[in-house]
Amino acid sequence: MRAVYDDIMATRKTDWINNFWKAIAHDSATLKRTWESIKQIMGPGALDPLTKELIYVAVSVANNCNYCIASHTASAVKKGMTREMFKELQAVIGMAAETNKLVTGYCVEIDKQFELPFGGTK
Amino acid sequence: MRAVYDDIMATRKTDWINNFWKAIAHDSATLKRTWESIKQIMGPGALDPLTKELIYVAVSVANNCNYCIASHTASAVKKGMTREMFKELQAVIGMAAETNKLVTGYCVEIDKQFELPFGGTK
Amino acid sequence: MRAVYDDIMATRKTDWINNFWKAIAHDSATLKRTWESIKQIMGPGALDPLTKELIYVAVSVANNCNYCIASHTASAVKKGMTREMFKELQAVIGMAAETNKLVTGYCVEIDKQFELPFGGTK
Amino acid sequence: MRAVYDDIMATRKTDWINNFWKAIAHDSATLKRTWESIKQIMGPGALDPLTKELIYVAVSVANNCNYCIASHTASAVKKGMTREMFKELQAVIGMAAETNKLVTGYCVEIDKQFELPFGGTK
Amino acid sequence: MRAVYDDIMATRKTDWINNFWKAIAHDSATLKRTWESIKQIMGPGALDPLTKELIYVAVSVANNCNYCIASHTASAVKKGMTREMFKELQAVIGMAAETNKLVTGYCVEIDKQFELPFGGTK
Amino acid sequence: MRAVYDDIMATRKTDWINNFWKAIAHDSATLKRTWESIKQIMGPGALDPLTKELIYVAVSVANNCNYCIASHTASAVKKGMTREMFKELQAVIGMAAETNKLVTGYCVEIDKQFELPFGGTK
Repeated sequence: MRAVYDDIMATRKTDWINNFWKAIAHDSATLKRTWESIKQIMGPGALDPLTKELIYVAVSVANNCNYCIASHTASAVKKGMTREMFKELQAVIGMAAETNKLVTGYCVEIDKQFELPFGGTK
Repeated sequence: MRAVYDDIMATRKTDWINNFWKAIAHDSATLKRTWESIKQIMGPGALDPLTKELIYVAVSVANNCNYCIASHTASAVKKGMTREMFKELQAVIGMAAETNKLVTGYCVEIDKQFELPFGGTK
Repeated sequence: MRAVYDDIMATRKTDWINNFWKAIAHDSATLKRTWESIKQIMGPGALDPLTKELIYVAVSVANNCNYCIASHTASAVKKGMTREMFKELQAVIGMAAETNKLVTGYCVEIDKQFELPFGGTK
Repeated sequence: MRAVYDDIMATRKTDWINNFWKAIAHDSATLKRTWESIKQIMGPGALDPLTKELIYVAVSVANNCNYCIASHTASAVKKGMTREMFKELQAVIGMAAETNKLVTGYCVEIDKQFELPFGGTK
Repeated sequence: MRAVYDDIMATRKTDWINNFWKAIAHDSATLKRTWESIKQIMGPGALDPLTKELIYVAVSVANNCNYCIASHTASAVKKGMTREMFKELQAVIGMAAETNKLVTGYCVEIDKQFELPFGGTK
Repeated sequence: MRAVYDDIMATRKTDWINNFWKAIAHDSATLKRTWESIKQIMGPGALDPLTKELIYVAVSVANNCNYCIASHTASAVKKGMTREMFKELQAVIGMAAETNKLVTGYCVEIDKQFELPFGGTK
């Protein structure tokens, strides 16, 4: 547990551990696995870290996780999210939720023109 | 309806209309309102159009809307999403979904250190 | 099972049984309990049967249940839902989904002025 | 912002603005777009305003939005929802949620007899 | 109402009634129907009562119902859930949520080899 | 990729790889991480493997993931799930979904008597 906490603080350049890690620390396998996965996934890659945080917030809003909204909004601000970006993020999330439901209620069939995403099998 | 269709094709530089618009075209008020909202929201701003598409896909995956996943994955590819970006997008969505549930199941309280996002009232 | 099927057909003035009932008929306790509950809940009361079907469709769209959307849209049409009503139903569902997410993303606190609904304990 | 607030108060015949509007007022484009959409959608039409509020509450319960449940339950009461109607509304929402899941878990196929809803493309 | 309360307390070998029952007691039909259904479903059968509580908690976490998480976690503890079992339960819930989303985002087609579950019609 | 595929087939005593793994194999980091996590989480522990599969199915039904329902129902059958167990599983999932919504719609406050689950911080 200590080693994971130290790595979290070193990686994030911070000196405190937020409640999420404390809660799951009761299960050391989950603590270690979750931290290693997040560290691997959220680091820089083809997408920059701020974009990843925006996506994380969007999923957390869609899934109604208030804790993750709070923690990842904070991370996004730390990585450069401005007030303008925040507003646009929320507008996109709301718009997507609305059209998701119009599509579902109107029973819209997927157009043949849309190709499968990378890796898709159907 | 014609005017909205023309604007969709002109804005998107395409010569076809996908099924979503055809389905809601039965309700001209919804067609017009939805197109104007999407046009306003998805255009360039503090967030670039590709980032907005990634967020749109993320919300659609979280909300299980297969049609919107197909259509906005296509839009994202058109705006520059590479295979690497797609993979990282999916990894972030999956990771967020997992921690959203760990937070919920473990009943994790929001840390005092997380400030309210812009505009929050609680 | 026979008795439940007969009651379904008599109550609905129809001579066929839709797949939902056939699927759960494998569990006679669930078949009986579900039919009796639906019969009790969907009958006329303070809300008329058509309004109840509209609510049923709305919940099924929100929950992404394509089967229930199909079956309860059919029931709603049978009970008088017009094309205009259908359009307005979908528009309300979409709008609610959008504001649900704006509220969540912006962390909006419940106003003191809103009293608890009937029966609420918090 | 002022103009939108005034229109909200005039339309609703009230002299206060609830937190939702204050929160999104930080984004004037979203404030204006959301209010105009809600005003257009929730007004009288083929469905009466009370029925629309019941549907709004149902979607908000399905989507777990406590704020919208509080605000639209209040609106519904103002537009005539009685305690009996409230009870029946909740019973329908609960029943729909249960059968939505039975259908999903049992993998029930949509019956050929159910025709596509108005506007459906599949 | 009295009879239902008495049966709840007798069945659960407890002398208090939790808020859920008090809230829905305003609707005696829903109170009676819900209690009878829960009593029938949660009793011993092919699955033991503890396993049923674990499943109930899992669904409540997936559906974000904090009240049901609290009440059914309490019931699970009463029926023998240990700290180790709780940890594994949460890990499975989180893992399932993650792969559910990977499947959705990657558009994975169901393998022909997977047979329909009991009762499935498609 | 080869090494992960071999381990999947060896662990599961099978000679084929289902579509899920093929789809995410395009992202070798996700393939490796996901398999290692699933292998760690789904193995025997305080909960037996069949109980874990039942929980996995329950979450997948709650989250509407048809692929995961198909694959984990198949796994559950392989690990001993009988038709009776399947029926009871579905009944519990449906019941939980219904009471989750009654709680939400009636705004039920968490009873003081319910203690925090293991690890909870609020």
